Parts: sequence; C-alpha cells; structure tokens
Amino acid sequence: MSKKAIILLSGGLDSTTTLYYAKNKGYQCHALIFDYGQRHKKEIVQGVRVAKLAKVSYQIIKIKLPWKGSSLLDTRYSLPVTRSLKTIGKGIPSTYVPARNTIFLSFALSYAEAIGAKAIFIGANAVDFSGYPDCRPDYYKAFQAVIKKGVKAARIQVKTPLIKMTKAQIIRLGMKLKAPLDLTWSCYQGGKKPCGVCDSCRLREKGFSSLGIVL
Amino acid sequence: MSKKAIILLSGGLDSTTTLYYAKNKGYQCHALIFDYGQRHKKEIVQGVRVAKLAKVSYQIIKIKLPWKGSSLLDTRYSLPVTRSLKTIGKGIPSTYVPARNTIFLSFALSYAEAIGAKAIFIGANAVDFSGYPDCRPDYYKAFQAVIKKGVKAARIQVKTPLIKMTKAQIIRLGMKLKAPLDLTWSCYQGGKKPCGVCDSCRLREKGFSSLGIVL
Repeated sequence: MSKKAIILLSGGLDSTTTLYYAKNKGYQCHALIFDYGQRHKKEIVQGVRVAKLAKVSYQIIKIKLPWKGSSLLDTRYSLPVTRSLKTIGKGIPSTYVPARNTIFLSFALSYAEAIGAKAIFIGANAVDFSGYPDCRPDYYKAFQAVIKKGVKAARIQVKTPLIKMTKAQIIRLGMKLKAPLDLTWSCYQGGKKPCGVCDSCRLREKGFSSLGIVL
Repeated sequence: MSKKAIILLSGGLDSTTTLYYAKNKGYQCHALIFDYGQRHKKEIVQGVRVAKLAKVSYQIIKIKLPWKGSSLLDTRYSLPVTRSLKTIGKGIPSTYVPARNTIFLSFALSYAEAIGAKAIFIGANAVDFSGYPDCRPDYYKAFQAVIKKGVKAARIQVKTPLIKMTKAQIIRLGMKLKAPLDLTWSCYQGGKKPCGVCDSCRLREKGFSSLGIVL
C-alpha cells in the first residue's frame, strides 16, 4: 500500500503542479481545498476539477474568518494593481491573509494524523511570489518543529518541492508531469478571464512568457 | 488604550481563569470559542456565559473536521473511563484531537493580526493534564517561532500563564481573581451533571479536593 499524503490544493498553478509531483512520487494523495471567504469561488471549482481529473480524494473545508484583515477577503477594499514585476515581493501586500498558511497547515496536520498520512505537500514558493512571510523556507522549518513537539504523529513531514523554483521552472515541471495547467486559476479576481494586472496574474504571465508561451 | 489580547476560551476551568488573569493584567480581551464538533454544546454555552459575565467580546468559530480522529468527536467510540489518577498523563488518550491546539492557535493568530492584538492567551497546562503533546511548554516555544517567521505581526506573544501550575494552584488563582469557576464545565460528557469518571472530571475533583473543597 502506498504512503498517504495530504495536498493543499488551491486550484492554482503551483498547488496543481505539487499534487502531480506528489502523485508521481508514489503517494496516495488526499487533497484539501479551502473555502475561506475568497472573493470568488472560481479557484475552488477549478481545484475540484483538478482533484477529479487527478483521481484523488478531496475534502472542501469551509472556514469563516469574521475578522477578514485582507483585501483578498474584504470587498470593501480594492485589490492592488501590480504596476511592475519589480515591485512584487517587496513588502507584504494587502492581499496577505493573516496566518492563512498556518491555518491551512494546521487542518492538514489534523487530517494527516487522523488518516495516518506521512507527509503534507504545499506548493509554497519564495522566488516568484508576493512576499508573504508564510511562503518562506524558515517558516516551514518552524512549522516542522511544531509538528515534532505538538502532535501524536510527530514524524509527519511538510514538503515544499517548489519553494526555490522560478515560476518558469514550476510550469516546466507541471508540463513534464502532465498536470492540467490549463484548468488552473491564479487570478485574485473571479472574472470570466484573468484580470492580468494582479500579482498572481503577473507572475503567471512572467512564467509562461519566459518559456516563450503567450497567454 | 489598553493592549488587546486574544483568549482561547473553552468554557472550562483553566481557560476561564486565564481570561480573568489576562483581564487582571490590563489587556482588552477578545475571546475565541470553538464549536469544533465536540460531543456536546455545554462547554460552548458556558464559555459564552463566562465571556458575557467578564464583559469581553467573543467570537464563536465553527469548524468541521470531517476526519474526526478522536473519541471526543466521534460518537462511535466510547469515552475512556479514568480508573485512577495515577494513569492520567501517561501516554496520549483517545480523547486527543489531532492538532487541536495548532488549529485553535492559528485562528487566534489570524484574529490577533487582524485586530492588532499583542498577545494570545491559552490555558494550557502540563502538570495536571491528560498528556496531550500540545499542552507542553516545548510546543508553545515552537509555535512562537512559527509566529516569528510566518506572519506580518511577528511580535505577537503566546502566553501560557497556567502551564506549570497544579490544578489546585489554578483554582486558587481563579478564586483570587474572582473568576466564575462555578460556571465552568470540564466534563467530556454533556450530561446534566459531570460524569465524575473522565480525565477532566478527575483532575478537576483532585484540584478542588486538595483545597479541601468537596464537589
């Protein structure tokens, strides 16, 4: 029987590639998709499609953060427009959701313990990213210590295979693994088409264009 | 303006004493009460009563853990009966909820960041306790490092004022602070009266009886 793993699946490019990476490593994958009050449900819908196509089990976890604290959750604020790629990752933008990855990892950890999974995969990236502190290697090292000290199944490993890759490298890996990148949704907005001007669209476009692919 | 703090409030003896401790230290307290699929709602009801009596704001966070993984959440299993005080804290009992305090702390951290709170108080105790790993000092030290590395408001402090106290010392502190200990609910069961034979009842009884108080 293959080893079990929990995969944090947002429906975006990075987490989809991570899911296919874990599958390729022989893990029996269990995806966790969070409905946490994002501005739109598009990434959730796409996450479900990806999970189904990958033939992995998935759970949708519904969370309500009454305090919001992010332009990604609070529609009273407008989403920032990224003027230039150079500014991305300098400072923490208003789209930062307080303690988001800690919340996601804590649920994944609970799930992993309950079903006896050996690993938690998260598609965090600290190269072509928005500057969120919970995407950096030091953070995952610290969370690993929480697992060691705080749970019964203290040997569960958090795995961040994409953390040091550029977006172009991630896309290349996804293509190699036959991940359905065309199904993924990166844009912070939930329009019919990606807005093209948020951090997430800019980084996605940068990745594809550096591979000679025009979106 | 006083400093803000988030208080994890379960409606039990320890968290109620912790709330009054934080209030006494001059914090403006914001209680978080979790409805996470416990066998009964009694502790939630009592938590709300405590928060109202203490005149602090509170939020009830509803969480569904589809995987359960604990006799405290899964009614297909019976709750363990504690035969002797000597066995409590030796090994991890079936009432352990996978990653519970990590989930609770992650929400508290998110709330703290969103409202600019400086501290998170949790009534964890590693003396008269059931042996849960997420009640030990090393775990809180590790979680503190997660805050330092993983969030924008990296200086938020996790405070565990009761962690090295005996249950009797906690009760004495609660009485001194005029915490409404009579309102608190410790029993794992949700009956009209406490069952008297679960870990939580045994520890509570031990604390009171060592102060010469018969429950």
